[in-house]
Amino acid sequence: MWNRLPTAVRPRPGRMVNRGMQIEDVPTPALVLNVDAVERNLQRMAEDCRAAGVALRPHAKTHKSPWIAGRQVQLGAAGICAAKVGEAEVLVQGGIEDVLITTDLVPSTMDRALDLAGLAHVTVVVDSVAMAQELGQRARQRGLEVSVLVDVNVGQERTGVDAGPPTVEVAKAVAEERGLRLAGLQAYEGHCQLVFDPWEQRRRAFECYERLLATRQLLEEAGLRLPWITTAGTGTYRLAIEHGVATEVQPGSYVVMDTQYARVEPARFENALYVISSVVSTNRPNRAVVDAGWKSLSCDLGPPMVKDRQEPAYEFAGDEHGRVSGLGPAREGDRVWLVPSHCDTTINLYDRYVLVRDDGRVQGTLPVAARGRSA
Amino acid sequence: MWNRLPTAVRPRPGRMVNRGMQIEDVPTPALVLNVDAVERNLQRMAEDCRAAGVALRPHAKTHKSPWIAGRQVQLGAAGICAAKVGEAEVLVQGGIEDVLITTDLVPSTMDRALDLAGLAHVTVVVDSVAMAQELGQRARQRGLEVSVLVDVNVGQERTGVDAGPPTVEVAKAVAEERGLRLAGLQAYEGHCQLVFDPWEQRRRAFECYERLLATRQLLEEAGLRLPWITTAGTGTYRLAIEHGVATEVQPGSYVVMDTQYARVEPARFENALYVISSVVSTNRPNRAVVDAGWKSLSCDLGPPMVKDRQEPAYEFAGDEHGRVSGLGPAREGDRVWLVPSHCDTTINLYDRYVLVRDDGRVQGTLPVAARGRSA
Repeated sequence: MWNRLPTAVRPRPGRMVNRGMQIEDVPTPALVLNVDAVERNLQRMAEDCRAAGVALRPHAKTHKSPWIAGRQVQLGAAGICAAKVGEAEVLVQGGIEDVLITTDLVPSTMDRALDLAGLAHVTVVVDSVAMAQELGQRARQRGLEVSVLVDVNVGQERTGVDAGPPTVEVAKAVAEERGLRLAGLQAYEGHCQLVFDPWEQRRRAFECYERLLATRQLLEEAGLRLPWITTAGTGTYRLAIEHGVATEVQPGSYVVMDTQYARVEPARFENALYVISSVVSTNRPNRAVVDAGWKSLSCDLGPPMVKDRQEPAYEFAGDEHGRVSGLGPAREGDRVWLVPSHCDTTINLYDRYVLVRDDGRVQGTLPVAARGRSA
Repeated sequence: MWNRLPTAVRPRPGRMVNRGMQIEDVPTPALVLNVDAVERNLQRMAEDCRAAGVALRPHAKTHKSPWIAGRQVQLGAAGICAAKVGEAEVLVQGGIEDVLITTDLVPSTMDRALDLAGLAHVTVVVDSVAMAQELGQRARQRGLEVSVLVDVNVGQERTGVDAGPPTVEVAKAVAEERGLRLAGLQAYEGHCQLVFDPWEQRRRAFECYERLLATRQLLEEAGLRLPWITTAGTGTYRLAIEHGVATEVQPGSYVVMDTQYARVEPARFENALYVISSVVSTNRPNRAVVDAGWKSLSCDLGPPMVKDRQEPAYEFAGDEHGRVSGLGPAREGDRVWLVPSHCDTTINLYDRYVLVRDDGRVQGTLPVAARGRSA
């Protein structure tokens, strides 16, 4: 389906990887994206949400690409999530018209978010009365009415006002601000994403959804009807759909997957992301040193796996190196394909993807357009 | 001394941070560099090496900036180290005329290294006979004679041919190649950098230097006199100077320091690097949530410290968040200054530094020019 994308957002060949280049010639370490696998993942998630009657708002914090976000919208997404204002700027400037910024605004980011709300349909979240009032005042000064979700803590203990009466208090503050329009609730159950026992995961996620349901009832009793309740990630979207309290899910990692999410969703989505490394030293028997270390592979969720190998074989050896065991006789220059443990933080290390097809053809490069846009 | 730098490499004000901006207004998370502290660190290391009569070749893998590298050369550095060919390209194109690429070349990177050797004085390393021959053949085809160091394993067990007779074998192979000029040895004792007991560190590092000394003697017996022996980092440069086998040291982190190197070199160098974060949520008593997580702070050597606090207070809370305890009453928007645990991998996450002076004035921004140049 990629050939049906508008020309303006097609990937252009990058400086280092020319059209017609073979995958063997791509300089390493390189971030490789199988666009055929991506397309299948996008279609599967779109189908799951359409069948369930739940809106899909994929999170762009994973892929950081307006091109992929555009394809998600083409396949029926209600809009796109951005983690930070800088990421939302890149999405809007890349043609995405409906963006939810999922992290709470502070005074120093509010003006940029309001600038963006003048260019596209931008929704923001707040988790305190103080920030609701601050945002409302700034929006009024510009003559804007900004769409706002209350960020609710349903158990992750990160951001969000506590579910129940504290949420009602913040929601009322939003509703009372003339510059704001209370649109709904955001309640991300991040602590449930990578729970590897399916029943334990279901139990914990349903606890969150029940808190959310009770909070919605309290809000209705207070006269606040909320049409938009957004939650869930790749690890829990099935559970959110099953429970029914959410009107929208916001998964991100399903687009490319990684070794950790593959333990939660082994059947539904394919791995589409790799880091190719090269053997640079073979001086130790049965252990090659490759040219990819902490600067090319994130370690926050552990080391990567070697493609098509079931046992751990890679260990970090500094900023620029890793040790890989069990390759058999290796020569300098041999390629080792690695599957990242955590897609978001690994993609964040690269300026571009090398695009490949199922048959291994290189299809140019794609900028990781919002890379580094953490502010 | 910064005002004596040539205009061409002066930092230009960035897009997001304007000249005249106050530090309180810089969007967060932001990477902050105190250029006064950097200048003092540069001068101290230059003095230490000058006094000892040992050449200094600072490693640019830490700062990734031709501007800082240029200042290091002004202060007497013999040249600059780059970790990868892509980093060396940025340095040469930024005006650095003598660059050592410290990681071993493989066939796919050799041609780019040879391109660069036609533009500046570039030295490369190899750790096998096969790669020496491969490189020699390519250099001959271009009519080049390339300066080569043999990469020696003195105990780190990463790259490098084993010290002793195996090194002699590779050195002979280099010497025999018409396209190569055998210039010396590189022997990085990376495993000794962060050993926090000074006597244990000295014992381990001296073991490495003794291996190197014995190898040099073997080489001399084989008729190979090597004028250039390069080793050491910020954690061991004093020890390398004390031992005497090295003719050159290649420290990188001393320029900015981090919490780990501060445990090894507490007296000599100042911390010059910070990540500023903002409080985005205050819903938990005595624990604020800030807007900097794994995408803004590397975790490979543990969490960052809060500036001026002795006890750990920050914990990672995902890609975009951290939890900070003990701030007292905090409000959304409050700034929390963090000291990275590992400077190289944290700098690698950002496109630019915000430059400040000792008195807190913002002095524009500086591109992390070689960021992402891991290939």
